[in-house]
Amino acid sequence: MTRYQHLAMLLEQRIEQGLYRSGERLPSVRALSSEHGVSISTVQQAYHVLETRRLIMPQPRSGYFVAPRKATLPMPELTRPAQRPVEITQWESVLELFNSCPDNRTFNFGGGSPDIHQSSVKPLWKVMSRFCQRQDERVLNYGDMYGVHELREQIARLALDSGCQLTKDEIVITTGCQEALFVAVRAICAPGDIVAVESPTFPGTLQLLRGLGIKVIEIPTCAITGISLDALRLALEQWPVKALLLVPTCNNPLGFCMPDEYKQALVTLAQQFELAIIEDDAYGELAYDYPRPRTVKSFDDDGRVLLCSSFSKTIAPGLRVGWIAPGRYLERVLHMKYISTGYTVSHTQLAVAEFIAQGHYQPHLRRMRAQYKANLGVFTCHVREYFPDGICVSRPQGGFLMWIELPEYFDSLRLNRAVKLAGIQIAAGSLFSAAGKYRNCIRLNYALPFTQETQQGLRIVGDAVEKLLDEYESGDGVAQRLMTLE
Amino acid sequence: MTRYQHLAMLLEQRIEQGLYRSGERLPSVRALSSEHGVSISTVQQAYHVLETRRLIMPQPRSGYFVAPRKATLPMPELTRPAQRPVEITQWESVLELFNSCPDNRTFNFGGGSPDIHQSSVKPLWKVMSRFCQRQDERVLNYGDMYGVHELREQIARLALDSGCQLTKDEIVITTGCQEALFVAVRAICAPGDIVAVESPTFPGTLQLLRGLGIKVIEIPTCAITGISLDALRLALEQWPVKALLLVPTCNNPLGFCMPDEYKQALVTLAQQFELAIIEDDAYGELAYDYPRPRTVKSFDDDGRVLLCSSFSKTIAPGLRVGWIAPGRYLERVLHMKYISTGYTVSHTQLAVAEFIAQGHYQPHLRRMRAQYKANLGVFTCHVREYFPDGICVSRPQGGFLMWIELPEYFDSLRLNRAVKLAGIQIAAGSLFSAAGKYRNCIRLNYALPFTQETQQGLRIVGDAVEKLLDEYESGDGVAQRLMTLE
Repeated sequence: MTRYQHLAMLLEQRIEQGLYRSGERLPSVRALSSEHGVSISTVQQAYHVLETRRLIMPQPRSGYFVAPRKATLPMPELTRPAQRPVEITQWESVLELFNSCPDNRTFNFGGGSPDIHQSSVKPLWKVMSRFCQRQDERVLNYGDMYGVHELREQIARLALDSGCQLTKDEIVITTGCQEALFVAVRAICAPGDIVAVESPTFPGTLQLLRGLGIKVIEIPTCAITGISLDALRLALEQWPVKALLLVPTCNNPLGFCMPDEYKQALVTLAQQFELAIIEDDAYGELAYDYPRPRTVKSFDDDGRVLLCSSFSKTIAPGLRVGWIAPGRYLERVLHMKYISTGYTVSHTQLAVAEFIAQGHYQPHLRRMRAQYKANLGVFTCHVREYFPDGICVSRPQGGFLMWIELPEYFDSLRLNRAVKLAGIQIAAGSLFSAAGKYRNCIRLNYALPFTQETQQGLRIVGDAVEKLLDEYESGDGVAQRLMTLE
Repeated sequence: MTRYQHLAMLLEQRIEQGLYRSGERLPSVRALSSEHGVSISTVQQAYHVLETRRLIMPQPRSGYFVAPRKATLPMPELTRPAQRPVEITQWESVLELFNSCPDNRTFNFGGGSPDIHQSSVKPLWKVMSRFCQRQDERVLNYGDMYGVHELREQIARLALDSGCQLTKDEIVITTGCQEALFVAVRAICAPGDIVAVESPTFPGTLQLLRGLGIKVIEIPTCAITGISLDALRLALEQWPVKALLLVPTCNNPLGFCMPDEYKQALVTLAQQFELAIIEDDAYGELAYDYPRPRTVKSFDDDGRVLLCSSFSKTIAPGLRVGWIAPGRYLERVLHMKYISTGYTVSHTQLAVAEFIAQGHYQPHLRRMRAQYKANLGVFTCHVREYFPDGICVSRPQGGFLMWIELPEYFDSLRLNRAVKLAGIQIAAGSLFSAAGKYRNCIRLNYALPFTQETQQGLRIVGDAVEKLLDEYESGDGVAQRLMTLE
């Protein structure tokens, strides 16, 4: 990132955070130049960028002003899913979302990929290639069923940051977080069992439960504090729930971090109802605040929490390096892991362990956290700019996923089809519910640095939303809506 | 391998094959020298090697003679497992076998690892490292849920050798053959269902079925022609068998290749009983005869065969690159694969595709086939030499696994414990049966080139067998035997 881009990003954040308010005069070019120790022309370039993005306006002979803005976007309210166990459907749409072939012409707001292009990830390439040049036998051999022990040691050390005391022997490496979740559910549940989840929930999780013949009960979830413990208690009183599967830190898709006292209360509730907790912490290290929030696992004193995570969101998903700390379920988890894939690929495990050991991981995390946080500001600005009034937008506290709620009658699958023609992919909200809720929502990925293409992409999505809303209002949409309800 | 080692190996094979018979005079040093175009001293060194191994004896002034030998070892007879569906147990012993930490002091006859040290595998290192040096983005990205398409194209091309017409879109890449088998079973069976298997059967398969709550019926199997079709028909008439899971080519552990006409008859039988066939072909490309035998899949005309394989035995297990061609079950298999691990690691997929595309795979296969075939001869000689009389030994037609049947009352778990003290691991036969058969059998891995350590290891195993048999006969063993029966 060049200096002026960096400065523009900084100013954009300040505008987003309300430090410079709508209509307010911005600092003079000279003042900014001396504040940031950059040249006059750098400041001018930065202002030019913001002007192009319609975030600021030049006033002849007076300098730059923050452009008049719509009011801050409200957040989604507590979700209200059906409060009974349901079967999960929709595999086809999920397949479409996850299997859209990588295509350079497609602007992908839909997927869950992190940014893998920043310089802080580069040492990984060297580490990987060195294992091959050295012809390290472990790359080709079966290895240890628990996974590479150097990696498990590093993970145990990292877990201290989230308040967890783990040893390497309590950790099993898996093929991504998906396998961690899969073996966790299989270790605890049988077909026909009921599992509670946050609502909305990551489609991969729902499909996993569906594939295992498990029913889910979706629990109302707040976009700030996470799953409603009251609602969860009600569900536990009413149904024989076997396990709770949740993403309490940097939630996918809502972005919240459940407060510590809620996490503690959750563990107490679980103990009361003999509930196992499967904690998906894949985004946990990407919380914008440092030190990172504690895991639910860190409050667990009787081994009922199965902590699942991976380096897919923090380093790169193609490595397929995930892990699970299954507490009292260790033996069953190991058995389930063995029968589903045998061993986990060694090369990427060795590489990640070395990447961490050489001290590259923490700087990389810091950089990515800062980037995602900055992107969030810019993204929110542009969503506010390009999307019609009356929408709610999540305020993620980590990660790189944003949840947008449109008017209740809106159909995001139609939106998906509309923007696909322009080479854009979004994640339709209905995939995030077993019972077909959230048709009126979409999830956007803001991992990549904001470019003109991003801006244009967002504008296209916003325009398409507006057009569809107009159709609904003019009546065309009513017919369409009735059709989709049939 | 040096010239004299090569020559020694060749002579050993001839002795094993009976071309030079017990007590017969071997060709003179001069004759061999001119036959093979090697120096006199090379022949002398080769003869010296064989002499050290007690395979030949020098007679002063007469040359070398083949050492007096025990009669050729008989093969195991048709197995007779319990002919009813049973539950599978023994996870702990399997765990012990598979998870014995790699230890250089351990001589591992027990595992299923191929030889990954030969020069023909070296280009793979270059290929792998080049993807990292080029910083190929596909290594870090999620990629295609079906797997890397270049690899699927290569696999489709290779499948022609086994008589299969496949397109890349009919193939899904998996995390080793284990995941292929896992998703195959999950795509077809529910807990409580019955699956038929060969008897003995690879422990990984049995544990997989156990973990999925499936009952198995073990079908009598011939060490030459494979599963008994008559016995299979009887089982199908009597029980609602959902699928047949088998390793018909270069069987693990018996080493047979089921003849083509049996494979054809099997498909016909399956059609008659609406049976799905899960074909594990992981060792298929290592058949000693070229061209390789056809797969059962190649006789399948209505998509009921799910062909599973991997590059774990042919290139290296640590790559975790397997695949499945699931016929009519494609969509369900894809769903099951997605929920268990999401995506498969890209780097090793790309590397294997490139390794094949650059033309390294076929020469590598030829080399490994030749090595394993030669090793088999030497191994068999030494087993005959060091093991007591009255044993039966399989005659593998491919792969690198040998099955030895000891007297009926022998307990291979005791043998395992005995040789472990000497740093040697074997695979106890009882792991290969759901119903606890084959306690009197062991499986040995002969993948690595025969060295003095191998020889010594085999001698230790043979001595331990002899000692245990003596104990049984002297009565000590009877008490022990009664104890294990309790």
